[in-house]
Amino acid sequence: MDSYLDRLIHLSLDEDLGSAGDVTTGALVPPKAPGKAELWAKEEMVLSGFDAFVRTFELVDPDVKVKVEARAGQKTSKKERVATLTGPLSSLLIGERTALNLMQRCCGMATAAAQAVSLIDGVKGSKLKILDTRKTPPGMRGLAKRAIRDGGATNHRFGLFDGVLIKDNHIAAVGGSIAKALKLAKENAPRLVKIEIEVTTLDQLREAIAHGAHIVMLDNMDDTKVKAAVDIAQGKVELEVSGGITAERLPRLAKLGVDYVSMGALTHSARAMDLSLEIL
Amino acid sequence: MDSYLDRLIHLSLDEDLGSAGDVTTGALVPPKAPGKAELWAKEEMVLSGFDAFVRTFELVDPDVKVKVEARAGQKTSKKERVATLTGPLSSLLIGERTALNLMQRCCGMATAAAQAVSLIDGVKGSKLKILDTRKTPPGMRGLAKRAIRDGGATNHRFGLFDGVLIKDNHIAAVGGSIAKALKLAKENAPRLVKIEIEVTTLDQLREAIAHGAHIVMLDNMDDTKVKAAVDIAQGKVELEVSGGITAERLPRLAKLGVDYVSMGALTHSARAMDLSLEIL
Amino acid sequence: MDSYLDRLIHLSLDEDLGSAGDVTTGALVPPKAPGKAELWAKEEMVLSGFDAFVRTFELVDPDVKVKVEARAGQKTSKKERVATLTGPLSSLLIGERTALNLMQRCCGMATAAAQAVSLIDGVKGSKLKILDTRKTPPGMRGLAKRAIRDGGATNHRFGLFDGVLIKDNHIAAVGGSIAKALKLAKENAPRLVKIEIEVTTLDQLREAIAHGAHIVMLDNMDDTKVKAAVDIAQGKVELEVSGGITAERLPRLAKLGVDYVSMGALTHSARAMDLSLEIL
Amino acid sequence: MDSYLDRLIHLSLDEDLGSAGDVTTGALVPPKAPGKAELWAKEEMVLSGFDAFVRTFELVDPDVKVKVEARAGQKTSKKERVATLTGPLSSLLIGERTALNLMQRCCGMATAAAQAVSLIDGVKGSKLKILDTRKTPPGMRGLAKRAIRDGGATNHRFGLFDGVLIKDNHIAAVGGSIAKALKLAKENAPRLVKIEIEVTTLDQLREAIAHGAHIVMLDNMDDTKVKAAVDIAQGKVELEVSGGITAERLPRLAKLGVDYVSMGALTHSARAMDLSLEIL
Amino acid sequence: MDSYLDRLIHLSLDEDLGSAGDVTTGALVPPKAPGKAELWAKEEMVLSGFDAFVRTFELVDPDVKVKVEARAGQKTSKKERVATLTGPLSSLLIGERTALNLMQRCCGMATAAAQAVSLIDGVKGSKLKILDTRKTPPGMRGLAKRAIRDGGATNHRFGLFDGVLIKDNHIAAVGGSIAKALKLAKENAPRLVKIEIEVTTLDQLREAIAHGAHIVMLDNMDDTKVKAAVDIAQGKVELEVSGGITAERLPRLAKLGVDYVSMGALTHSARAMDLSLEIL
Amino acid sequence: MDSYLDRLIHLSLDEDLGSAGDVTTGALVPPKAPGKAELWAKEEMVLSGFDAFVRTFELVDPDVKVKVEARAGQKTSKKERVATLTGPLSSLLIGERTALNLMQRCCGMATAAAQAVSLIDGVKGSKLKILDTRKTPPGMRGLAKRAIRDGGATNHRFGLFDGVLIKDNHIAAVGGSIAKALKLAKENAPRLVKIEIEVTTLDQLREAIAHGAHIVMLDNMDDTKVKAAVDIAQGKVELEVSGGITAERLPRLAKLGVDYVSMGALTHSARAMDLSLEIL
Repeated sequence: MDSYLDRLIHLSLDEDLGSAGDVTTGALVPPKAPGKAELWAKEEMVLSGFDAFVRTFELVDPDVKVKVEARAGQKTSKKERVATLTGPLSSLLIGERTALNLMQRCCGMATAAAQAVSLIDGVKGSKLKILDTRKTPPGMRGLAKRAIRDGGATNHRFGLFDGVLIKDNHIAAVGGSIAKALKLAKENAPRLVKIEIEVTTLDQLREAIAHGAHIVMLDNMDDTKVKAAVDIAQGKVELEVSGGITAERLPRLAKLGVDYVSMGALTHSARAMDLSLEIL
Repeated sequence: MDSYLDRLIHLSLDEDLGSAGDVTTGALVPPKAPGKAELWAKEEMVLSGFDAFVRTFELVDPDVKVKVEARAGQKTSKKERVATLTGPLSSLLIGERTALNLMQRCCGMATAAAQAVSLIDGVKGSKLKILDTRKTPPGMRGLAKRAIRDGGATNHRFGLFDGVLIKDNHIAAVGGSIAKALKLAKENAPRLVKIEIEVTTLDQLREAIAHGAHIVMLDNMDDTKVKAAVDIAQGKVELEVSGGITAERLPRLAKLGVDYVSMGALTHSARAMDLSLEIL
Repeated sequence: MDSYLDRLIHLSLDEDLGSAGDVTTGALVPPKAPGKAELWAKEEMVLSGFDAFVRTFELVDPDVKVKVEARAGQKTSKKERVATLTGPLSSLLIGERTALNLMQRCCGMATAAAQAVSLIDGVKGSKLKILDTRKTPPGMRGLAKRAIRDGGATNHRFGLFDGVLIKDNHIAAVGGSIAKALKLAKENAPRLVKIEIEVTTLDQLREAIAHGAHIVMLDNMDDTKVKAAVDIAQGKVELEVSGGITAERLPRLAKLGVDYVSMGALTHSARAMDLSLEIL
Repeated sequence: MDSYLDRLIHLSLDEDLGSAGDVTTGALVPPKAPGKAELWAKEEMVLSGFDAFVRTFELVDPDVKVKVEARAGQKTSKKERVATLTGPLSSLLIGERTALNLMQRCCGMATAAAQAVSLIDGVKGSKLKILDTRKTPPGMRGLAKRAIRDGGATNHRFGLFDGVLIKDNHIAAVGGSIAKALKLAKENAPRLVKIEIEVTTLDQLREAIAHGAHIVMLDNMDDTKVKAAVDIAQGKVELEVSGGITAERLPRLAKLGVDYVSMGALTHSARAMDLSLEIL
Repeated sequence: MDSYLDRLIHLSLDEDLGSAGDVTTGALVPPKAPGKAELWAKEEMVLSGFDAFVRTFELVDPDVKVKVEARAGQKTSKKERVATLTGPLSSLLIGERTALNLMQRCCGMATAAAQAVSLIDGVKGSKLKILDTRKTPPGMRGLAKRAIRDGGATNHRFGLFDGVLIKDNHIAAVGGSIAKALKLAKENAPRLVKIEIEVTTLDQLREAIAHGAHIVMLDNMDDTKVKAAVDIAQGKVELEVSGGITAERLPRLAKLGVDYVSMGALTHSARAMDLSLEIL
Repeated sequence: MDSYLDRLIHLSLDEDLGSAGDVTTGALVPPKAPGKAELWAKEEMVLSGFDAFVRTFELVDPDVKVKVEARAGQKTSKKERVATLTGPLSSLLIGERTALNLMQRCCGMATAAAQAVSLIDGVKGSKLKILDTRKTPPGMRGLAKRAIRDGGATNHRFGLFDGVLIKDNHIAAVGGSIAKALKLAKENAPRLVKIEIEVTTLDQLREAIAHGAHIVMLDNMDDTKVKAAVDIAQGKVELEVSGGITAERLPRLAKLGVDYVSMGALTHSARAMDLSLEIL
């Protein structure tokens, strides 16, 4: 059961079908006519989102059977069949666009993640991990987090509930003191979540380390500052670099010994991959 | 009432907050502390999605008041304030990400549409309109259609229910005959919707015209073929070009006298715009 | 709060508006244009359903204000204004059909009930009450029950939950014995509900009386048999006549001393009353 | 998947069962006792609504199996078995009323449509089609539209989303000009829907034709005026007659060469057909 | 179908899983690893709640199969296996707590009911029945009512809809007159529900009997007063004792000839029973 | 917005009201009659659940105004007014039981937590914190977690999503190795959650410490073993004692230097507190 996924698929089908349904298919395709289809990747991509694809057809019509022929995280060739479907032709046509809309975006995020990871793959001594953010497509949080993992990158927290991340606004809300913010977080935060805090200066970093942050986010620091931060941290806290991350910069950050970079673009600006449902 | 929008916002808030809520804000921010914030566009963009932005905060906390200071469809400068918010600080922080996730994507689609439209703006004698497709972000159909209009482009049909669009699969389903497909559509389709049909050859185009299609979609034809199609159609049907549309090609298509091009990328691959909520 | 009514109105609006909304109003009416309207009864009727009418507009747009100028149960003249509305013109147009669809049917059921009641109004010594049944329009149970009362008739049980009504199928299920059916019902039924049982013969009536039924439904008995039943019952149980009830027969049944007749047609076949929303 | 139908059935079952369920069946019928039942048409009717009937039992209890023995659109004899059911007796009893409430109304609308159609069946040269309206039972839009087709009549638009229908109120909203209303509709309405406009005078008809309406609705015109309208239209627009349609008038309108008449009564005032579930 | 139970289980799973799911199981257990488990009662108890237990796993994962090996109402030994489960190990772990949370409380209420019933079991000539109240765990009304029956006690009304219970506040609302309250109830209450009224004095009891109450609730009366009430009632009404019911007092009330005592504690303060899911 | 709370309240109201509503109030109380009421604590308790109490009346009728006169976490005297209400009398009566059912249980859990905390209050040098568990009333997770904090105790994780807790079943699932379980958790668990692991022996404790657990749960260890565990841990991990916790034992555990004890009974077996709504 994934009630979030079901809610998104129902919403997507409802907005596409309304109360009147698919008037083209209704006019042309006999309700019981059998059909077959194949799902093809039409460009190189990292696959993700099979659950959403399969579940869409389950909800459209339990008589549609989907046989997945690849696995999440797999990299496709330029043209590769990844699933076959059988069932009523009308149901295949009705579910096609909704299922593709979901899966194309999942593959897009997975592929973006894989591309970022590949940039730091060979860097010697690197412990750098690429993180996503909460800038995910509305309603697709679970699918996006999974896509990032399918692409080989690492998830930041899932939502507001599974980790403390103290940002500038929170620090301001307690009067500007990093020490106070961390003290309050330790007293009040859930017992099994860690505390990350965002800093903009090296002094703030020292204060954060002194008051027990588990992870420190270095906000918009250039490489020189990042290097100084690594020297200060000495492994006492994990360091995450955030803001202004470009492709060229990733290998440099890997070399500097940073633990994480987080990249909103992996989920907020990944393009859709070219997937196509071919009716046979 | 927009029950679709409310369903999407509820889903987005639920996936971000879960049952445990915002543990950072809960630990650091007093529940009643007042707050102010400003919404800033951080790059040039065409604005869209205010309804979703405002509604998110209404659903988070009716005590948050949003004053919109710009209008949908407006082009911003590189740095421009577009709304101000007052209300409980904790509610501002809780709704921030969900509201931004929605609006950033709306602005992205509107901006992509405006860019496409600008490419054909000066073309003399052009009647070309840029269309979207149904390749919209799941759950965001209404927001996406609105964003396309805000960007100055034109909506294709909204869903499967408000227009007949006979594609290759439908033609195949009735035995491959365009004539038969159009006959069935006329007999069975709802009375107040028009009939569009996809063709891949000029012969098919002639058949479609002969059998009363209202609009013909030219699938993946190059400029030479498109020109021939325009000559054949002579205004008896409207023509839509689809597939493989690039920026360079748009002005050429405008000159050729085509009525429409449809571009899935406007909604499936628009990047998110840089919008930021600044807490004061 | 009436979550059932809200569910019905949301469903009705969704099926009328879909994700694309009112495309005519969207094309022609400016979103903020103010409007006024009046609700008119266009024939003589008994009014009912104001709650549904008002709630529909509340859900469409809280800025629409409805002033009800008549009361449920009131009999109108052939042409009579019964409510006035102010608010955005577009919202008035969007809610119009859904609100009318609900209220026209409520007035229809109330009027049908009032007509039936009027047929037995002058009958001397009558204690006859006209009952409805569970044959109500799907989703409108609460509105239908209220309409019947607004028309001056009496509600049978509301659902399967607020009264035991043992029908032939139940009697058959326990082996055909009225005594056994009543015994089981007394042992197992909720403590605060009465037990009614359907009989087809006078012997069964005697058995039902002997075993403690509170009310006996005489199924499809003619007037002679009904008279005999009244003599047998002697007020020890209440008697309900059901099946084949015609207008002519009602006064006769009233004279015979029956307690109730139940008439499915009041709710399953009442026609819609002519109500009209006049935009000013 | 038909989420609208499911929502209506869930609502109907909830209003009938509440949280306490069927107290009669609970008291008398062992939970696992097997049952059989037959669905009988008890009068001549046109069948419709099997989907709703079957789906109701699926939602009550997946162990109930319904075998439909007739088809939608079929005309029954005065007494004819149309389906058989097997499954737990208690589930048959619990679903009975809800399933019948839905199907009786569907058959009623289909039968009303068939009766109207039969009145114009033999008319020579007629192209007249009988249309329904949006005056459908709340929550039953899809079932009603299907019933009208099952009865041999034709659907008007499904909702507010799949066709432009400019009524007097819309014309008034743009200042009273038919030309302006049509111009706005053409500019703003969705690309694949046609435009119908209501007129009350022949001059308005001429204006509507001149400005490109696809269909013109003649509101409450008598036969003389309708004849004049047909002469004016000369096939340049389709004509729909609406308002005050009686049985006697239908053949006359057919002879006059009108394209459509629309009749609200088919859906708003059709009586329920007599269907009965006989437990064996 | 029990839409109430499904709503509760979905809510419970959602609050436990959120959008991120079971992160422990996700990290450690392969998705397809098969599992087996047993449900054990770890103390003496009366079993109840199997429906909720089984349904939880159905909703978590249809591939989990639960074989119930005991029956509702059965008294267990101190350590007894009552069900076995097979299915994906991850699904067993994910559903475990939610299923147990539901069933432990059902068994707790059933056991509390059985203990109360046992206290009056041997009392000669007693007709006393132990009733529950509406003080049930939120969302668990149906499960609680069933648990009370499984424990051998009797249900009071299910909700506000299946019985009239006139309390002091209602009497005050009509001006303090028991006669008037009963008159109004008889006129206005649903036809198939009985009328119970709460009294605090013997004079009120006499008034209630005189005006046709079916059942009288004696509120907070001591044994002497209860005895006097029994003498006054002489079987003309049923008597329910409510308020301040202790274990010691139950046999005395049984001897006094009271019909009912109602005990809120059976449902509002029953402790959870010790049930455990042992993964094999 | 707390969609979980709203879902629970809607469910609770629906199960109490059904489609027929409060038939007693409907029969006796005029719909518009004004009312006043007071909420009284009738015994000493720690208050909790005001949000649920207030929200229930908001959902029943926005015209009911609740003025809360105490605060969550406050200890009441034996008889103390804690809120006053004004609004339609019928709405006060309709919401009464649902609101009380929720709040009585919240106060019960808060009071149980406060009692446990008071047992270790004076213990010198103690750092012991009392934890709840996930054994909360179904649908009330958020309310229960809040109640525990209102009572002065500390929340364990909120759900399966905000902390890794490796139990015996998980260890078994990876072949019985604590080292392997911890390794997998570190690799796969969300980045911002800590890892707790359950051990039953001191050797397992040593292994858990060696492999980087953040917190170790000592399952069913007696005081001697717990003391040994504290000596082994030496503050390198936090220790939580679980299972068989009695009141007498709490001060001893506090003295032993344990960090946490978790007590399921605080939420699964707290009795309801005596709260009463007095209509004035």
